[in-house]
Formats: sequence, C-alpha cells, structure tokens
Amino acid sequence: MSENLTENMSENLYGMKRTAYCATFTENDIGRRVTVMGWVQKYRNLGGVLFVDLRDRSGILQLTFHSERNTELFEKASQIRNEYVIAATGVIAARGPKDINKNMVTGKIEVLCDELRILSKSETPPIYVDDRANTNEAARLKYRYLDLRRPEMQQALYMRHRIVQSAREFLNQNDFLEIETPILTKSTPEGARDYLVPSRVNPGTYYALPQSPQIYKQLLMVSGFDRYYQIARCFRDEDLRADRQPEFTQIDIEMSFVNTEDIMEVNERLIAKIFKDILNIEIPRPLPRMTYQEAMERFGSDKPNIGFGMELVNVSDIAAACDFKVFRSAVENGGSVRLINAKGCADKYSRKEIDALGEFVKTFNAKGLAWLAVGEDQHKSSFAKFLKPEETDAFIRKAQGEPGDLLFFIADSDNTVFDALGNLRLEVARKIGILEDIKDRFNLLWVTEFPLLEYDEEEKRYVAKHHPFTSPMDEDLHLLDTDPLKVRAKAYDLVLNGTELGGGSIRIHRTEMQNKMFELLGFSQEEAENRFGFLLEAFKYGTPPHGGIAFGLDRLVMLLTGRKSIRDVIAFPKVQNASCLMSGAPSKVDQKQLDELKIRNVE
Amino acid sequence: MSENLTENMSENLYGMKRTAYCATFTENDIGRRVTVMGWVQKYRNLGGVLFVDLRDRSGILQLTFHSERNTELFEKASQIRNEYVIAATGVIAARGPKDINKNMVTGKIEVLCDELRILSKSETPPIYVDDRANTNEAARLKYRYLDLRRPEMQQALYMRHRIVQSAREFLNQNDFLEIETPILTKSTPEGARDYLVPSRVNPGTYYALPQSPQIYKQLLMVSGFDRYYQIARCFRDEDLRADRQPEFTQIDIEMSFVNTEDIMEVNERLIAKIFKDILNIEIPRPLPRMTYQEAMERFGSDKPNIGFGMELVNVSDIAAACDFKVFRSAVENGGSVRLINAKGCADKYSRKEIDALGEFVKTFNAKGLAWLAVGEDQHKSSFAKFLKPEETDAFIRKAQGEPGDLLFFIADSDNTVFDALGNLRLEVARKIGILEDIKDRFNLLWVTEFPLLEYDEEEKRYVAKHHPFTSPMDEDLHLLDTDPLKVRAKAYDLVLNGTELGGGSIRIHRTEMQNKMFELLGFSQEEAENRFGFLLEAFKYGTPPHGGIAFGLDRLVMLLTGRKSIRDVIAFPKVQNASCLMSGAPSKVDQKQLDELKIRNVE
Repeated sequence: MSENLTENMSENLYGMKRTAYCATFTENDIGRRVTVMGWVQKYRNLGGVLFVDLRDRSGILQLTFHSERNTELFEKASQIRNEYVIAATGVIAARGPKDINKNMVTGKIEVLCDELRILSKSETPPIYVDDRANTNEAARLKYRYLDLRRPEMQQALYMRHRIVQSAREFLNQNDFLEIETPILTKSTPEGARDYLVPSRVNPGTYYALPQSPQIYKQLLMVSGFDRYYQIARCFRDEDLRADRQPEFTQIDIEMSFVNTEDIMEVNERLIAKIFKDILNIEIPRPLPRMTYQEAMERFGSDKPNIGFGMELVNVSDIAAACDFKVFRSAVENGGSVRLINAKGCADKYSRKEIDALGEFVKTFNAKGLAWLAVGEDQHKSSFAKFLKPEETDAFIRKAQGEPGDLLFFIADSDNTVFDALGNLRLEVARKIGILEDIKDRFNLLWVTEFPLLEYDEEEKRYVAKHHPFTSPMDEDLHLLDTDPLKVRAKAYDLVLNGTELGGGSIRIHRTEMQNKMFELLGFSQEEAENRFGFLLEAFKYGTPPHGGIAFGLDRLVMLLTGRKSIRDVIAFPKVQNASCLMSGAPSKVDQKQLDELKIRNVE
Repeated sequence: MSENLTENMSENLYGMKRTAYCATFTENDIGRRVTVMGWVQKYRNLGGVLFVDLRDRSGILQLTFHSERNTELFEKASQIRNEYVIAATGVIAARGPKDINKNMVTGKIEVLCDELRILSKSETPPIYVDDRANTNEAARLKYRYLDLRRPEMQQALYMRHRIVQSAREFLNQNDFLEIETPILTKSTPEGARDYLVPSRVNPGTYYALPQSPQIYKQLLMVSGFDRYYQIARCFRDEDLRADRQPEFTQIDIEMSFVNTEDIMEVNERLIAKIFKDILNIEIPRPLPRMTYQEAMERFGSDKPNIGFGMELVNVSDIAAACDFKVFRSAVENGGSVRLINAKGCADKYSRKEIDALGEFVKTFNAKGLAWLAVGEDQHKSSFAKFLKPEETDAFIRKAQGEPGDLLFFIADSDNTVFDALGNLRLEVARKIGILEDIKDRFNLLWVTEFPLLEYDEEEKRYVAKHHPFTSPMDEDLHLLDTDPLKVRAKAYDLVLNGTELGGGSIRIHRTEMQNKMFELLGFSQEEAENRFGFLLEAFKYGTPPHGGIAFGLDRLVMLLTGRKSIRDVIAFPKVQNASCLMSGAPSKVDQKQLDELKIRNVE
C-alpha cells in the first residue's frame, strides 16, 4: 500500500496521554506539565514565535512554540493549519501582561510546548467553525459535523443532555420506571399520517412507526407498572412546518390511580426541578390555571401568553344595540364583537399599517378589522359614520380607553373572533416591543377543560381535540349524546410564554366508554376492532384509572436555551422536505432491496 | 347514553387517595389508617369473613371484610372477583398467630377494611396471572398486558430500568454526553438487511432504520463531542434466531483521543458498577484478556466460556507421524488434529451417545468424530486398529489422560476443528452438569485482536469481521495488500460466560485508510461514494483518533436477571416471524396510505 498511508497511520501511534480538557486549566496550574488534544481554532506565526488557539469541547487554550527553544519543533508546528487535530505537551506558564485575554477562561495562561503530534490534517473547511460566522443554514446542515464544532451548538447539545438527565433524576426518584416501547408498531392512523415499514417476512403487511407510545403506555398501566416514563422518539409524516420534525422526542409519562390534580402536582415539581437545575430559576408553585374557555375569552388562544395584558373585551352587548350593521348582524348570527385596546398606539400605527393589520386578520378568516383611535374630545374610527357618539363612547368606556389608545374590533363567529384577535394581540405586542421586553421571563400556566371533540369540516365528522383515549369530564357525560361539542375533557396543556410545552389527559379506562368514543368519532365497530381491538380487549380485564402527559423535548430545550429553531437543539435534524442534507436520506435503494420486500414504486 | 355507562363512570369519582404501595406496610404500621389500590390476586369468602389478596407493583397485602362489622360493605366486597381493580381504606392490624404467612413481606398484618370502591371489573382472564402457572408463550404474548402483571415480569422490567440507570449514572459521571441520533437514516446496507421506510414527500426514495448509530457517533467525534453515549434502538431485518429481535437496544459508546487500553479501562469500570449496583458483586479488575487466536486454540471459540477447563489439545505433531490416514492427511492438507479430554467420562457415554455426538459435530461440518476411552492397561477407541500402541499412548500423554477419561478427536481444517470441538466441549459440559454447576458464577474476559476480514464464500469477497470502520492493527498494515486475512484489527469483544456482551473497536479516522478498506471489501469508488460519501467527506476536515463499543442491553439484562430468553426482559417483544402477537403488527394498511406513498405490493 502507499507509503503515504503507512506513514500517515504510523502517526496514530501517538504515545501521548491527555491530561485534561483545554479550558479546565487555570493560573493554579502554572508550572504544571500537561498534554492537551484538540482542533486548531486559529494560529499566528510571528516568525520567531507561533501561537495556536487549541479548541476542544471545554473551550480554548493557547499553545506557544518558540523557534529559538526548539527549531525542529517550530518547523513542525509551522505546518499547522485551521481544524488540524493535534496533541501537544508542554508547561503551563503565565502570559505576558499585554497578552492577557480577559474574554477567555484561560486568557491568563499559555502552554509552552516541547512536544507536538499532528493527529490528523484538515483541508480548508467549507464553512467557518465560528459562532460569529453567519453561514446559511443549508450549508450548516450539509456539513453538520463541522457546524456542531461551534461552541453554540456544543452548548445546545450539552444543555439538552443536562435537561434530559434532570428530568430522569426526578422521575427515577419519584418511582417512575423507564420502559421501552416498540418502534415497529401497528398502524392505527387517527390524526397524523403514519410512517410505514414494509415487512419482508409477511409481504403485503406493514409496521408503522409510533406517533407516540400512547397505546403502549396505557397497556403498561393495565399491566400494573403504576408509574411509567420514557424519553420516546415519535414519528409523524406531516408536511413540515417551521418548528416540526418528522421524528421528534417527547418526555412521555403515565400514572395509575390518579386524577388531574395528582398529575399536575407531580409534573409541576418535574418542571420546577428542570428550571432550577438548568437556569437556577425558582418556579412558583402551584402554577396558575385557566380553563380553555377563559383562555379563549381573555386571550383568544388556548396557549395564551399571559406575560402582558391587552386582553380581549367582549362588546357584543353594545354592538347588538348599535346602528353599525356589521357589528349588529355578527351578534344576531350567534357570533360576537370583541376588541383589544392597544394602549397609546394611536400614533404608533399609520393608516397604511392599520390596513396591513386588516390583511393580517383576514389570514385567520376574519372578514375585516374595525378600529377606533381614542382622542381627547373627538375620536377617529373606521366606522364613525355608522355610530352615534354615545355608542362610540360606550365602546371606549368598556375598553377603558384613554386618549391615545387604539382599539381593534373583530365581529364574526366566536371562533374566528378569538383566532383573529388572539393573533392580532401577539402581532401588536411584537410590533410595539412588548414581546422583546418580556422574553427573559418565564410565564407558565395550565390550560384545562379542553373540549373533548371538534367538528372536522373536511371529514364531516367529529375528531378528538387531544386523542380518542381522552376521558370526558364526568359533569358533562349527559351531553355526550345530546350536545357532544359541549362536552369538556379531563385534558390539560402546560403553556410557557404562549407556547405549548406539553399536554395530557386522564384516559378512558372502560371498554364501554372507549367504544362510545369511537362511535362518536364515526368508527364502525369493525374499524374500531381492527385498529384498537387489543386495547379494547385489554380494558376487559381490570384497568386502573390512569392518565399522563407528554412534553415536547425539542421545544423545551429550545425555549430553555433561548434558541430560535428546534433544528438548533437536534444533532442531525431534517429540513422542511423531511430530508437530511448531510446524509442525503431519504435516498434511492437497490432494486434487490425492494424485490425482497415485494413492493414497487409507482408513478 | 346507557345508564350502565354513566353509573360505571361515576365510580370513577373515587374520592380516595392512596397512602402507599401494598407491600410497603409492616408491623410498625399497626393501628394506622391506610388506603391501598390494586388488583385482586385472590379472594376467600368464609361466609362471615372475606379475605382479599390485593396486588400492586410492590407486592401483596391482605384485606379483610367482616360481615358483622359492616353488612353492606361485606355485600359489596362479595362481588369482588380475580383481577378486579379496587380501592380500599381501613386500619392495619396484626394477623392472628395461625394466619401469619412467613412467605409474605406483609404476612404478619392485614387491613380491616371499612371502605371499598370497585374501580373496574374484570372478566375471567384468559391466562393465569401467576408465576407458577406455566402458560405457553404464544398466549402470554397475545395477552402481554396480563403476562406483565406477573411478579416475575414486573421484576424483569424493574431490573432493566435499574441497569439502564446504573449505566447512565456512570457515563454521566465520566463526562459522556447522551446524544440522540436519527432513526430515519440513509440506507447503507453492509452486513445485515435494512428496514426501509418509503418517503411520501420524495416518492421513490426510502429512509432506513439504523442497524446501529455507528456512522452518526463517529461523526459526533468528528464534531468534537469527545465522549458520547446513547441507549440506542437498533433494527435488523434478519431471519430471527431464538435470541434475536428485529428491534433491539444497545448501550452505545464512543470516545475520542483514545486507544484500546483507554476504552477497555472505562468500560471495565462501567460493567463493574452495573454488577455492583445490581447484583452486589465485585468484579475483579482488570479483566482477563485473550487474543482471538488464543481463544480459538484453547477453547475453539471467539467467545470462550472460561468457567471450566476441558481445553483443546493440538496433537497434530503426533497425528502427522501416525499410521491413521484420516489423522495424517488432515495435517498434510494444512489442517490439524485436536482433542478434548472429557475427564472421567469413559463410562458416562454409551456407544449410542457417542454416535450422537458424531452427528452433532457433523452439524459444524466436521467429517467425523474419533474417540478414545482411556483404560487401566488397555484402551478402547474408534481407531484402535490403525494405531500402534505407542502412538495411542502418545495421544494419551499429551492429553494428560488418566484411566476413565474419554478423549474426543477432530481432524479437519483448523476452522472446522475449532468450531466442532469448541461446540462439542460445551455440549459435553452441559451433559455432565458442569454448566449447571457454574451458572451462578460470572466469568468476564476481553477477546482481542480479531481478524480484520473474513472471506465470504457466497459473495466471493472479503467482508469485515466487525464492520468496515474498524481500524487494522498498525503492526499488520504491511499485510493489507499481500495477505489481508492475516491482518488483525483493533477490535475487542467483552464475553460473559461464553456469551458476547458487547464489542467494539478503534475506528479508521483517515479517508485514505477508509477508502482502502472499502476497496478490500470490493466496493467500487462509486459505491463507496454513494453509501458513505458524507463520512469520507467528513474525514477530510480534522478527525480525531476515536473508538468505541456497544453492549447488547437486552442480553445484558437477560444474563443479569438469569432469564432464559430476551423476550422475558422486553416489554412488548416480537416472535420469530417478526410479528407482535398482541397488536397484530405488521398488518394490512389502507390502500390510501400506499397510494400516498406511491408504492404497490407485488406478488
């Protein structure tokens, strides 16, 4: 074989042993002989002296080579280039006063080297390994192994590691058992699309990758494990939105012999421990709670950002009696008229910007946006000519409007009003800087009593708001047949700064009720049998009352580390079209593989 | 909805709070008022008094209901049947002397109940929830959720949980970061078959489920994470053997800037901690080591059970000179003649049984089995007539044979001799009870210096003994071109009582060497590019020397818990044809799903 190769390899016999990570050394180590190994972050050759910033996962340490001390070594060191992997031995010394770097943990020391191994070389990297370089994400993901060298990414995955261990520590201490459930499962499509895996041994049949361990963790409760958890990989073949991945991780939890209170109590302590361990922040417990209904009425959202006001105000009573037909008819048709008061925004928005907001609310199916700028004695509004002054004053009074305030009105069906005003509220808060001001605060709350069902216009049937295993509230059982949409569920979401951190519910634990639920969802007995037969069967043999929750780990890590995208807290993420820019997955495969699976691609 | 349903549900409002698990109460709690919840293991109604054995994950506690104390409650309790889920409140009392059960942790106490809720009922279970019941495995797996109620299965998964946490604790303390790698990866078939996942977004392309995180963990080393671990799910679409599962879990570890010694040292401490935590056994370190060559020569196996002797003896020198043509020609053809000495077995084996052993060794491709029964002055053997007495004596001397010993000879190519005699050794040890005698001892050792390659007769090419990323030993680099099969690898397996617990290697970390390896394996440049291009590219930009190991978690748990099958340490295992008897996976799916994936089943 090539000389070159043998010689290259022989370098691998690098009889040196690393003393410790680079950034673990301090002034206390001055005079100590150490060996360090890592990557060349940068080098400066000043002729007689060569400085190398050596990087490993702990940080950076300066290596120094002096030609007059050792010419041969200096020559060798002069070959060093960025991202070379080297091992060096030397004595730790104090830097000269003018060489001290206050921005570096190891800024007051350097290693005067007398030994050096070049463990492996590097071509010029296609992307900069530097947090300051703002490389486009496509390139970062193609060369992920280089992108991950950046301290920012190293930090993100280190934090992810710590968050997971913190959660495990809590769950282990609280009698939860970590139990692995299968990845090759049965396809039970309901909600999102399954990823399928063709079976070679049983041609024509398929496994599905789990959208969550839901059914398995419920069966573990049937089995009497009482408290289960798993850091579980889940899969959904959806068309990806910015913050979605085809595979994602959830902290999956299930408990037996509990009610909603028990589950909230344990999980508040879990979340509090994570915040304490990771951010050293004390979360005040118990966390605030809000029913779904209240969240919609006040914030127009089931994951309200309660970090600021600008709450929705229901002015339907005034609207119903006013002369403005758009307002009046909305109420007459069973809808409502609501507003938000953008305090002191009257002069912050130009007519043009207000028109833009009008377009904005249309994306949430609102027919239009009415506005009213509160003045000292006279007001401007989009509907002035339709209203009597006293009607306008009534609106202002109810909105607690003061001169300089800008009121935004939406008149429509309740759902549209909530959706449009809820999003408008956030949009205004972003524009006037409120979200920026509060971004370092952590506002947690539980949203409870979600509707059990919603009506799917496309499928022309009821679908489960959470999932088909969620238990209705006992108080509403009598409505299951008469008015299903009014039935509330024993379901709860944990919301952080307007983002859903996790959600769960008390489960149905009786065959009759589960059958009833499937019936409401429009499953035939046979469909229910085919898909969930084994669960229904299990329920016949003594099922404890049980419930649980699942937290989205990727999102939790993103929020705790202040990252903008979940791709920045996942080692090897996929992009919008569900492909991996680094490995090229998914890719074409050998015909032989498809033949063995007895499947064929069709156009 | 049905009365029955509403009434059933209302039971769910069971305003009782559990005090603690059943088997946590002791005599110290006598007089204490407690609430317990669980399953009815059994009940005895003696008319005036009803005894219930209540079971939860902690064990069993006796509940007692007296009719004269509370007739109504007694009536309700009388409805209880096996596997009903109940909640009961009462006062802990001492049992009468004759009712004490010494075999139960709680055998000296009972709960005199004054409250009872039937939380859910149970039909007669299709299988007994009892460790003593020996139900056939098919039924156990179909009703896995009931099988898992058995203390034995609860214990197995509890131990699995503890083993995993013990490993994590060690790895966390030793600076390893737990990093998740993708499940939806690129297909790079080499060795086992990939499970494929058709892509809907990119029709005609496929993801593969990872056979191991190998490439990703190496890329994490390229990224500078330095120490990685993951409790990783792996997938292989093989025709299952008894101890295989299509999906299995490994403790996956990788380290940078290390050599074989470093990796062995850390992992010996990991294994020692697990044995200490779980079995309270001190593993003497450092663990014994043996080269692959020595393991084959002495035990005829690369995972030798060193718990007993009966080692192979090479008698080729004598055989080469003897008159027995079968022996002589084996040596002349470059093979060897070796024997094992079954001490004192001369009268333990009938001629018929020895013939059976002859058939046994044929399954390992040996042409035949020769034997010699050492007598006081004269010996019996299958080849007496071919040998001079002094030749026979020479064999006996070399075998340290004594009267009553039974010698078994195999004459063949080395590989066949090793394979056949190695297995015969275990078979004899099993038959005469040695394996049973030593089954509670734990003999660990490292087997090192595995061959880099082996020749695949079917594919007519070299294949990697471990995997294509394993580094050759520097001492043997010069043989890569001239005599590849002689090249040893920086590879090591950890062996426990004759079973491989895990294996690993120092990896190739240079593009040239990796290309060389692919070339030896008969990949064209293009094939190598298509499959591993991103890894080869990564190696160009500064790759640290690195290596790692992976332990089979399922097997580790099986051995530490003394279970016979890995199915007994997996919550929801699959059977030989890779199906799940409980869920019915894999199953037919809706045509709509296949249409969306643009694939079709073919006959």
